[in-house]
Amino acid sequence: MQDVPTFRQVRFLEKRQQILDSAARLFSQKGYEKASLEEIAARLKLTKASLYHYVRSKKEILFHIQVQAIEEAVRALHEVIASDRDPVEKLREAVRSHVRIVTKRPVTNLLKDQELILPRKLRTRLISERDHFEKIFQELILEGVEKGVFERGNWKMGAKAALGALNRIPMWYNPKGALSAEEIGDAMAEFILRGFGVTIKTGGDRQGEEKP
Amino acid sequence: MQDVPTFRQVRFLEKRQQILDSAARLFSQKGYEKASLEEIAARLKLTKASLYHYVRSKKEILFHIQVQAIEEAVRALHEVIASDRDPVEKLREAVRSHVRIVTKRPVTNLLKDQELILPRKLRTRLISERDHFEKIFQELILEGVEKGVFERGNWKMGAKAALGALNRIPMWYNPKGALSAEEIGDAMAEFILRGFGVTIKTGGDRQGEEKP
Repeated sequence: MQDVPTFRQVRFLEKRQQILDSAARLFSQKGYEKASLEEIAARLKLTKASLYHYVRSKKEILFHIQVQAIEEAVRALHEVIASDRDPVEKLREAVRSHVRIVTKRPVTNLLKDQELILPRKLRTRLISERDHFEKIFQELILEGVEKGVFERGNWKMGAKAALGALNRIPMWYNPKGALSAEEIGDAMAEFILRGFGVTIKTGGDRQGEEKP
Repeated sequence: MQDVPTFRQVRFLEKRQQILDSAARLFSQKGYEKASLEEIAARLKLTKASLYHYVRSKKEILFHIQVQAIEEAVRALHEVIASDRDPVEKLREAVRSHVRIVTKRPVTNLLKDQELILPRKLRTRLISERDHFEKIFQELILEGVEKGVFERGNWKMGAKAALGALNRIPMWYNPKGALSAEEIGDAMAEFILRGFGVTIKTGGDRQGEEKP
């Protein structure tokens, strides 16, 4: 069991989290390269020197942002798996909750190029966190396959396709767009479930369908 | 009609293409940030000064690599659409050919962060090229929807899911991996076709399926 953190420690972690959240927004607006530590500090009315009290470098900030996003996704997935729904409802809920995470967190999109920026140690940890997430997602699919609810086919490639579709959302998601994150989650869940061979009756124009 | 290029012009374009191809490989290995113009030049036994004869900057190289990849994808898609196959076979072939392109070209994965690096003018052109590609892909899907072969549901979101799955492939594709690009293309095509409601009988273990 971990020791209860002191008030000072809690304050430290809260401040650090503020820095990470603010940096994530800035990265997503300007891109990682153009965002400077000075600007991250200025946005929080900190000096650059006091920023260094909480984080060592821009790379470390990037690393923590990415890892936190994956950890949140892993927690959400564990929760879904632990529930006593059937595989179809589990996958639907897993997709919906993942869409919520990738649309809420501005920098969840793991960019290969950004990973290459990281020092080897951090990069290795990041990749292993992501692999861990993918493994849990695969378990969820495999459960459905073994129960005969999902098509076996090449189910691992199906899992890759599903995660690719979801993790690509931050590339085009627009909070002011025609569809809300919830609607995107529903539509993605239907597409992915069908991809695994589940028959789904769609409601036609129900989901914000528009004529081109 | 364009004038026939002179021998000198052809040589110039060939050399320029060599530079772009070599740079693409380097970007994909080290990441865009860490790759230097010096190294790109050195790999082709050019001086940096003579490299500047062909390209103005690293950003311009990145831009051309991305645009060429999209242009190739657009050409492939046009070819598929012009053929007299039914919508199912068109979509299957479109997916297969897109997988061929994204696995062959090391930097096809349009990274939002990389786009933000580009000067506004180049970025705008890149985004419009990508939108153009997506529009053609949507037309292909819509044809199937209107013929009643694909589920209408939220077909635009389905198109986004499909392209997301495909454009994310460079993040995990390993040329030495268990599945060839062709096998990945086949599996992706099946998953995506099912996503649009097409019933597909899968061959079970046929496609490199392995026990976990």
